[in-house]
Amino acid sequence: MGDTKKISLEVIKRLPRYYRYLGELGKSNITRISSKELSEKMDVTASQIRQDLNCFGGFGQQGYGYNVESLYNSIGEILGLNHGHKTIIVGAGNLGKALALYKSFEKRGFKLIGIFDNSKSKIGTFIGRHEVLDICTVEEFIKKNEPEIAVIAVPKEAVGEITALLSKCKIKGILNFSYTDISTLNGVEVENVHISDSLMMLSYKIKDIE
Amino acid sequence: MGDTKKISLEVIKRLPRYYRYLGELGKSNITRISSKELSEKMDVTASQIRQDLNCFGGFGQQGYGYNVESLYNSIGEILGLNHGHKTIIVGAGNLGKALALYKSFEKRGFKLIGIFDNSKSKIGTFIGRHEVLDICTVEEFIKKNEPEIAVIAVPKEAVGEITALLSKCKIKGILNFSYTDISTLNGVEVENVHISDSLMMLSYKIKDIE
Repeated sequence: MGDTKKISLEVIKRLPRYYRYLGELGKSNITRISSKELSEKMDVTASQIRQDLNCFGGFGQQGYGYNVESLYNSIGEILGLNHGHKTIIVGAGNLGKALALYKSFEKRGFKLIGIFDNSKSKIGTFIGRHEVLDICTVEEFIKKNEPEIAVIAVPKEAVGEITALLSKCKIKGILNFSYTDISTLNGVEVENVHISDSLMMLSYKIKDIE
Repeated sequence: MGDTKKISLEVIKRLPRYYRYLGELGKSNITRISSKELSEKMDVTASQIRQDLNCFGGFGQQGYGYNVESLYNSIGEILGLNHGHKTIIVGAGNLGKALALYKSFEKRGFKLIGIFDNSKSKIGTFIGRHEVLDICTVEEFIKKNEPEIAVIAVPKEAVGEITALLSKCKIKGILNFSYTDISTLNGVEVENVHISDSLMMLSYKIKDIE
């Protein structure tokens, strides 16, 4: 495998999609696929796919295609999906609950180990097999259980407080679903997700349809 | 205003973020902002911002900055957010429910007019003020109420059936949250959203953190 450190973030951004798609192929017992076939199914040019996948080296063979399983495993390794990241969710509202029950997370190697809220009516209730814990206990919980990732799904008024709280803890990454962007804070990586951005893009695309 | 048809999709993709941010500035009664200030707050280069916003023309003035309200309104217009898109949700599971109650959707001009499911235990129950309707009635509902957008939040096994059903109806766009990508179908625009892709990106970013 090539030196993954040199791969640009633009290429990395396309990897989850390749990964998902190769996973589906594997399940359908397809063991090899050409960049042309991948290209047709994924609506990306074959040359883009070849360029992207060449970054990892050694998977394609002229006229022979890619080994689906090897490529799937290697992309998973590059993305760090084989590490079984321990994850907590902060916010047990509708979105937090949906995320806690979202099957793809566990499938991708993210292990939910705790869900927190500040609302008395939610603390002590269960979401799946997880009891909602008091946010006041999160520092202690993190110290003891060492989750790597915190998923934030709280109202925007609470984001500042939660971020301040988490920045005191040893967390590696934050996946932020709240309305307000969080900047990368001291040594903690952040991905801000705005579900309504996709809806705005769709709005643009349908603007000229009669 | 410039001819918006010439704006590339790469620029358009950045607009929702500008739009959200300008909305926040407006709420804080900030009426003007320079590209340098915007750049610092948004973690994008000032030259990128100037280039992007020059596509719409007439908002920036050397040494004077951008008029926050005009720019906000124009971006909203370009994205087609002033149209009050009527929207339905198909799938009243955890994610569908969270989306139905997601406040940013209504705020961005997407008006939920119906939510559908095929499960007897869900049909007739209420999510907020919306009664969950039988999916069997969706064709008739669309004919009568003319929603423009369908948000799909169903298990992957059901995607094929739902897509086939919706392709017979007069819908302009689909926002697809189900695991399986939907290709753009006859005249219907599609945005596929994969929540777990962000988690995979975060996994990559934290890989080398000790």
